This record gives sequence, C-alpha cells and structure tokens, in this order.
Amino acid sequence: MPRASGATPLFQRLCLIGAGLIGSSIARVAQERGDIARTVVAQTRRPETLQRVRELGFADVVEADAARAVQGADCVVLCVPVGAYAGVMRQIAPHLAPGCILTDVGSTKGSVLRDLAPLLPEGVHLVPAHPMAGTEHSGPDAGFATLFQGRYVILTPPEGSDPAAVEKIAELWRRCGSMVERMDAATHDKVVAIVSHLPHLIAFTICGTADDLAEETREAVLKFAASGFRDFTRIAASDIDMWRDIFLNNREALLEMLARFTEDAHALGRAVRYGQAEFIEDRIKRGRKIRRGLIERHQA
Amino acid sequence: MPRASGATPLFQRLCLIGAGLIGSSIARVAQERGDIARTVVAQTRRPETLQRVRELGFADVVEADAARAVQGADCVVLCVPVGAYAGVMRQIAPHLAPGCILTDVGSTKGSVLRDLAPLLPEGVHLVPAHPMAGTEHSGPDAGFATLFQGRYVILTPPEGSDPAAVEKIAELWRRCGSMVERMDAATHDKVVAIVSHLPHLIAFTICGTADDLAEETREAVLKFAASGFRDFTRIAASDIDMWRDIFLNNREALLEMLARFTEDAHALGRAVRYGQAEFIEDRIKRGRKIRRGLIERHQA
Repeated sequence: MPRASGATPLFQRLCLIGAGLIGSSIARVAQERGDIARTVVAQTRRPETLQRVRELGFADVVEADAARAVQGADCVVLCVPVGAYAGVMRQIAPHLAPGCILTDVGSTKGSVLRDLAPLLPEGVHLVPAHPMAGTEHSGPDAGFATLFQGRYVILTPPEGSDPAAVEKIAELWRRCGSMVERMDAATHDKVVAIVSHLPHLIAFTICGTADDLAEETREAVLKFAASGFRDFTRIAASDIDMWRDIFLNNREALLEMLARFTEDAHALGRAVRYGQAEFIEDRIKRGRKIRRGLIERHQA
Repeated sequence: MPRASGATPLFQRLCLIGAGLIGSSIARVAQERGDIARTVVAQTRRPETLQRVRELGFADVVEADAARAVQGADCVVLCVPVGAYAGVMRQIAPHLAPGCILTDVGSTKGSVLRDLAPLLPEGVHLVPAHPMAGTEHSGPDAGFATLFQGRYVILTPPEGSDPAAVEKIAELWRRCGSMVERMDAATHDKVVAIVSHLPHLIAFTICGTADDLAEETREAVLKFAASGFRDFTRIAASDIDMWRDIFLNNREALLEMLARFTEDAHALGRAVRYGQAEFIEDRIKRGRKIRRGLIERHQA
C-alpha cells in the first residue's frame, strides 16, 4: 500500500463501522496519507458489499462482524445511518478496548449521545463528529479521498470529555483536509435542521407534490423542469436509509424548523393572495441578504 | 454591425420593450445572426440604463419612450416584469402598426391575456411566449447571445390566433436556438407554478426563516450552510421586481401549488413526529423517481 514511510500514524488500528460513501472515503484518505492509521479495518455487513470492499482494497482488514472488527482498535468510527447506532453499540460495547476513542460521522448529534452514552464502557472516550461533506451517491464505490477537503467538521464532545481524545479526532479530520469546529449537540442539531434537513424534507415533499399532479401536468412538469425544480430534485436524489434515520433522529429540531418555515410560507402566500407587494419584496430582499452573507463567507 | 449578409431577416423592425437580461440577450442574438431583424430597437426607461444600452451597442436604435419605440415595428417584444404590461400597453397600443406581432417573454401567461388582449388594436397579432431561460443576474450587462440555446420556449397563443404570426414567433425562438412548444395559458401557469414559482417562493421563505433565528444560530447557519441550503439561496438571489410580479400575476396557480405542497409537507412532518419510517421512505423514493425521470429527459 502506498503509505508515506516515516510518518507517525495518529492511530494504531482505525476501525470503520460501515464502508459507504463516508467510511470508504476516510479509508481512502488513510491509505493515501499513511499518517492516520497503521492498520485500517473496515466492517460491513452485507456479503455483496463485503466482497466489493475487498475488491476495492482501501482497507487492510475487512470484517463482517462488528464485535470482531473493533477488537484492539484505538479508534472506532461509526459510519452507518444514525438509526443503526443503538444496535451497533449493543454489539460492540463489550469489545471496545480501554482507552479507545469512539467517534462517528452522523448528521444528528443529540441522538448519538442518547444511543451511545448509556452503553459506553469505562475508559472509552466518546467524541461525536459530523463531517459536513457528501454527494448524492452512496456505497463503497462512491467514496474518494478528497471528499472532506475544505469542508467543515463539527465535533460535539459531551461536557467533561478527555481533551486529548477530542484533539486526536480533531487532528484526524485536519489530516482529511477539513476545518474543525466545536459546538454543543443541541445547537448542532438546530443548525443542521435548517441548513440541511429541512431543505431535504422540502425537496422530497415537492417531488411528491409534482408526482401527484394530474397526468398531463405531470408530464409537462418533467419536460419543463426549470432550474428551480432541478436543484430540488438533486437534493432529493439522496440515500433512503440515511435520510429516514436523520429525520427520525433529529425530530424535535426538524419539526421546529418545519413549523417556523410553514408559518413563513403561509405568511408569504397570504401576501400573494391579498396583493401585498411590499411584503413580498421584503421577503425577496431577505433572501438576497442571506445569499450575500454566504458569498462573503465563500460558501456559495 | 457584424450581420450575416444575404440572410433574409424575419422582421424589418424588431422592438424590444425593456433591455434587461432577456431583452438584451434577444438583441445580442439578433446582432450576431443578422437574420432575425433588419433593425433592432431597444426601449428602456431609466436614463442610466439608456446610457448603458447605448454603450453596449447591441441595438440599432435606443429609445426612452415606449410609444415612439414601437412605431413602424412589425414585431414588438415586451421584456419588462409582467406587472408593468398593463401600463406599457396603454402607452403603446395606439402606436402599434397594423399587422404588427405583439409578443412577450413573461413567466405568467394568463395575466398577459388579461392585461394585453383588451387593448389590442384591430389587425395586431398577440402571441404570448415564455422562454424558460434565465440566470440569477439582471440588467443589460447580464445578457448573452447563447442564453436561449437548448432551452424550451412555450407559446400560448389564444384561440383563433393567426397561424402565420404564431409561426413567425416560433421561428424567432428557433433562430435563438430554442425548442418551441405550445400550450394553453392555464396549463402553462400551473406547470410553471410547480417547477419554478413555488420553488422560488420556498427559497425566499427559508432564507427569511433562517434570518429570523436567534443571532448565535444564524451565524452558524451562514457558516455551515450545506449544499442543500446553498441551492436554495442560489434560487433566492433573483430579481426583486420580476419575482414580485410573477407571484402577483400567477396567484391562483401558485396558491394552489403552495396549498398542495404544505399539505404534503405537514403529512411528512407528521410521519416524522410519530416515527412512521415507511411513510418517510416512500416520500424519499418518490423524490428519486422524479429525479430519474428528469435524468432520462436530460434535464438534470
């Protein structure tokens, strides 16, 4: 394997539970750099994925059994949909080595504390993380080593976390090319609810709304989808299990943002109904203001 | 001017009322090709725009006064926000030459019939059109000659329209590189309500919703805007007057689509609240289905 010789690896044995887009991308970075882990273990459950991961060759060890995969690892990264965390934790908890750092890549962080903390063995450090990177593709073939470059990774370590463990996970992501930020889990969940989860809920919804239109209109919709609708369907072409789990595991924040959004949408709809031009102009102006804010931050 | 000599122009005198993104793009195509009009007249009201249009040099004649601009034109294209049509029509109607074709580029088509048909002089042909092309930029500097290439243009001629006039406008757009389709105004307005107007209403709304969040969360929203939210703000960075007018002039169809969409969003929100995984999966699957439909039609 093309490892940079002489570099000091951050971990002896890095275990990735799940080898989809994110897990396989971490493995690929580790393989390319050589200074992330001496040994990379990739765990994946389904036989066909297992076979494919072996073929792709981005891991030193490929395991079907999660309990066996984590044995001897000094860092375990959960890279499965967040709805699977509780079940995985029941399997791996008794096998986590003392001093091991348990981290993850999930898009919801309150649920991670809820599902992992109660089963956390003494001496194992929990450092939840959320790399804000992704594509509309999934599976071990979809990963690539530059996925995290220039993207934010948010760490949400619970109060009283071991600073050395937090720093090691921060360094893991810096070596992946990411900018690392810290936040409490509740704030994280609100922020991602509005910047990511609600937009996806809306995109899935509007696709369904269009699909319900009478046959003739629906055909024309597909034909004339302007760029507005195209962007929505790009968002909507995402992994089913992952998004189902995100919605179910960020319920409170998502429902709060949905409620705020629908109130605002109804207010704008009411202004349209009653011809309130100034109200409408004000809403459009605010959209432009946020847009400018993004451009100034080089996010757009 | 770099006109292709020997080509037969479609029109003798093409008058563009408004010289923003769309108007100036039509003028640029006409200038490049030479077979669209012998003379291109661009009308624009504001002195600073007038000066800029003269500098840019894409029109043979630049006029401030709409009534004077249309004189002697065998084709007049309204390229102003749809809310300005009624006022413009009052100015130009008495000056339209017999046999002239009056067309437009507006995104709402029921309102065009409502605002233009009552004042249409005997012998003037009305052929409403909607080129489904645009960018998030506006003004005479924003236009370019390839804007319409490969894009659909929908014609909504009222019943009993002169076939020769309809064919000339179809040919105008074919020479701009567009695919021409015909539809009745009501169907057009429904289709664009769901593929374009509602997505914009949603995008403007969600930007405002984010802007209303508490200061700390708002700052984080700007910092961590994931691609989902970025796409929304791209849509939301559109021309204020144009979108205000579109919303106000496609009110019925837009409110119907908004109602359908919010019903569906609430249903999905309810499934999230009660943990109905199958319902959520079904919605995500439908989004992917529409996405596939778009890809098969090469629109995505």
